[in-house]
Amino acid sequence: MRIIQNVKEMQNYAESLRKQGKRISFVPTMGYLHEGHVSLMKEAKRRGDQLIVSIYVNPVQFIAGEDFEKYPRDMARDEKIADAAGVDVIFSPAHAKMYPEQYQTYVTVEGVTRNLCGVSRPGHFRGVTTVCAKLFHIVKPHVAVFGKKDFQQLVAIRRMVDDLNMDIEIIGMPTARETDGLAMSSRNVYLKDGERESALSLSRSLVTARELYAQGERDADKILSRIRAYIEGHPYTRIDYAKICNTKTLEDVERLAGKEVLALAVMVGSTRLIDNYVFGEELTI
Amino acid sequence: MRIIQNVKEMQNYAESLRKQGKRISFVPTMGYLHEGHVSLMKEAKRRGDQLIVSIYVNPVQFIAGEDFEKYPRDMARDEKIADAAGVDVIFSPAHAKMYPEQYQTYVTVEGVTRNLCGVSRPGHFRGVTTVCAKLFHIVKPHVAVFGKKDFQQLVAIRRMVDDLNMDIEIIGMPTARETDGLAMSSRNVYLKDGERESALSLSRSLVTARELYAQGERDADKILSRIRAYIEGHPYTRIDYAKICNTKTLEDVERLAGKEVLALAVMVGSTRLIDNYVFGEELTI
Repeated sequence: MRIIQNVKEMQNYAESLRKQGKRISFVPTMGYLHEGHVSLMKEAKRRGDQLIVSIYVNPVQFIAGEDFEKYPRDMARDEKIADAAGVDVIFSPAHAKMYPEQYQTYVTVEGVTRNLCGVSRPGHFRGVTTVCAKLFHIVKPHVAVFGKKDFQQLVAIRRMVDDLNMDIEIIGMPTARETDGLAMSSRNVYLKDGERESALSLSRSLVTARELYAQGERDADKILSRIRAYIEGHPYTRIDYAKICNTKTLEDVERLAGKEVLALAVMVGSTRLIDNYVFGEELTI
Repeated sequence: MRIIQNVKEMQNYAESLRKQGKRISFVPTMGYLHEGHVSLMKEAKRRGDQLIVSIYVNPVQFIAGEDFEKYPRDMARDEKIADAAGVDVIFSPAHAKMYPEQYQTYVTVEGVTRNLCGVSRPGHFRGVTTVCAKLFHIVKPHVAVFGKKDFQQLVAIRRMVDDLNMDIEIIGMPTARETDGLAMSSRNVYLKDGERESALSLSRSLVTARELYAQGERDADKILSRIRAYIEGHPYTRIDYAKICNTKTLEDVERLAGKEVLALAVMVGSTRLIDNYVFGEELTI
């Protein structure tokens, strides 16, 4: 496994791979890798000849007061996990090279970033789409794999790729979960003992939503009231949002009629957790 | 010469060229080609194995009340000019394919687009950088050639390419001029008889600025007062701006000390003309 930190070196290597007719698959990450990332890497490995993983905690997607400084990092551990997953190249650039002093260009996806996390984390998605555009231009992938846990992120990236005519296939993979159902996240390490139990209220809500849907419930408010009450019944929780949205536009719906997603963001103690369920799809809890 | 209208076909063709190790050079245009475009094409031809020219009047870079509808178009004539200039492929996509109904992604360069045309044409540069990002992803050039007449545009595109790590070489070419000095522009056809004479006040101002600079004048206001008075002495003229800016940041300067540009935008009748002179560089008038 090769580790590249220099932008130009990464571009040249990617270009040489493309010239040899190799298919580049890519998993962008912020590191502190877990089984969720590994599942993305395995899928990416299957879909290309060379698997490149970026490890970069992107400051531009953190908003003021968020956990950029304390976001967990462990490069030595990440290297071992990546190597075991069959990663060919880790790209881990320096901040000063990614955002030099005179930096001033941003990629903004408008409609689908307005609702949900776009409300509570203004500027977050601008940071995500900007860094993904940069990484795509550096790593030059044919295919990039993202997790569906960050549902709104995946929708925004798909829109960016379509709108800007980026010639890249975007794959969304099911959320990896702990055995008790908690969606895997690098931020789960923040959870204290009692909070860990309360955090299960998110994934268990998804199960409830699936059951109500299976019973024929199509009224968004009825499903959401049940879920809100359930989550609020747990200590340490504060709901940021619990919404049912169209999966393409991410606008709120009143009735479930086409393709909808239940999206949750909940503070558990001082840790912000998200989870989601696309109605009608499988839910591995 | 091949004409491609379909985005995917263009991408596949560009990809096949790159796989063969061919160097793609690119000149994006809004058509109604003139000698200025031809000079860009000749430079681009020299710098690559296959020359692709896009002809696309990009609605997103026109602001409300501007001349999008009446912007001159003549595809048959453009094809002849391009063919004679050695163009290998014309890419001329349909609006509905470039900006489908759900379109919502924009590339914004912040700092360098604030001054000059950024004041009088809010949103214009967002349209320019967005369409260039799209065209770059479709045409996949190794090198792209732009005219220096649109100086701020060139600075914004260079910033976008650097900031977003696009692996493309950007070349700026000197402004092509009519024999009397008027900067070539597709919009010159709008000029009525008396206006055509007044339009020369722009290029003649550049000559004056060059002379003052050669005589040792370094006070921006002194140069600008002379130029403003000169332009305003012509009928049909209304100065939008006459400024001296740092060539990198495009911020106004008070004294000429490093690398500065004199940038002019003048309404002549109902036609908006721009021109510029980088102090110390050659001026072919």
